[in-house]
Amino acid sequence: MIELIAFDGDDTLWHSEQLFADTQASYHELIAPYLDGDLQPAAIDDLLLTIEHRNLPIFGYGAKGFTLSLIETAIEVTGGRIAGVEVQAIIDLGKALLDHPVDLLDGVVDVIDALAGDRRLIIVTKGDLFHQETKVARSGLAERFWRVEIVSEKDEGTFRRILADASVPADRFLMVGNSVRSDVLPVIALGGHAAHIPYHLTWALEHVEDADPERLGYTQLRSISELPDLVTDLDRAP
Amino acid sequence: MIELIAFDGDDTLWHSEQLFADTQASYHELIAPYLDGDLQPAAIDDLLLTIEHRNLPIFGYGAKGFTLSLIETAIEVTGGRIAGVEVQAIIDLGKALLDHPVDLLDGVVDVIDALAGDRRLIIVTKGDLFHQETKVARSGLAERFWRVEIVSEKDEGTFRRILADASVPADRFLMVGNSVRSDVLPVIALGGHAAHIPYHLTWALEHVEDADPERLGYTQLRSISELPDLVTDLDRAP
Repeated sequence: MIELIAFDGDDTLWHSEQLFADTQASYHELIAPYLDGDLQPAAIDDLLLTIEHRNLPIFGYGAKGFTLSLIETAIEVTGGRIAGVEVQAIIDLGKALLDHPVDLLDGVVDVIDALAGDRRLIIVTKGDLFHQETKVARSGLAERFWRVEIVSEKDEGTFRRILADASVPADRFLMVGNSVRSDVLPVIALGGHAAHIPYHLTWALEHVEDADPERLGYTQLRSISELPDLVTDLDRAP
Repeated sequence: MIELIAFDGDDTLWHSEQLFADTQASYHELIAPYLDGDLQPAAIDDLLLTIEHRNLPIFGYGAKGFTLSLIETAIEVTGGRIAGVEVQAIIDLGKALLDHPVDLLDGVVDVIDALAGDRRLIIVTKGDLFHQETKVARSGLAERFWRVEIVSEKDEGTFRRILADASVPADRFLMVGNSVRSDVLPVIALGGHAAHIPYHLTWALEHVEDADPERLGYTQLRSISELPDLVTDLDRAP
């Protein structure tokens, strides 16, 4: 019997990576006038990813660190020629990302309602504390969840603490999310269950090469609407 | 008997506001070459505070939002003339702030050691989740605390939840911190105890006019070294 089901937030309950991609597209338009034709958007994206990765140990995850990395990348690719007005426009892109309405994925409300009656549901999400709280509040879902855990990293230690706080053994715990690296692997390592629901975009820093559900021992679903049947199956398992 | 003692982090356990002030001083030097002599540092600080206040509902508290507000202020006071190299230097100031070693206030280790044996101690701190976790880890104090609560705002709701999680009634709870607004008033409103230990600098957005310990019902201490005696007094109170 599954007693506790945890949901990732970004790209599992609500859209997120698409908003980052849209922001990045607007950013390309902003800096394009500074570039000669030789620098392709893909090369700028590669540099941005390098800078984001380098900044991660200082900034952590989230949209404010992303905005600072966008500015650093713009300074570097323009050889410092980017003007104040465009830097302000990049900050404004970051603010729009932080202030964006929450757009739930299809099927989320029905599935949460169907599952909330029988067991405890929690959200386990990482990123800017304030931004994630804002998104939970704007989602309209907060009252259906027993707890909301906003964490700086989803690793085994994080999930071990969450299970201890809830007094639930790992084999009665199911994590649901779009990231194999953050939502699946640490939970499987603890002996828990995990459902991977891919989003149509994956941030490169979350990408896992050759993730195989059967070999690694998790379930892959096409959409969250398939989740109640999985929970029923897990409940019946010996 | 006091069962649970909560400590604020920044400027209660470790220095913080002084680092922000030092960062701001370096920032003034950075942008000075762009300014004609008419604009005084105090006017720039006023504008920065206005911009920080305006950005608070989008950024929340913390050093990354502060860095973005520094950049916005620089763009505004230079009429957009600030160059990429100085914007990068501002980002580097922000990174240095985020990556700064943790410098504990005098007396903290002894007081925490003295109090930790008899009751649960927690940290309740606000700001960037990742930055605050880093500071707790670097403080070397983490193991003395039962829990670390990093929150986006310290209001009555936050403290009510913390007391419920710890199953402690308000009159057996003592909060210790340097901000009357965040560490004292919401705790007093719930019927708890609060000790205010002023730091030599207070961020303007935390300032409370005419705070009077006697009228508001909290205790003011000169340093954390006076805390064990206060706890003894509260334990003995009827």
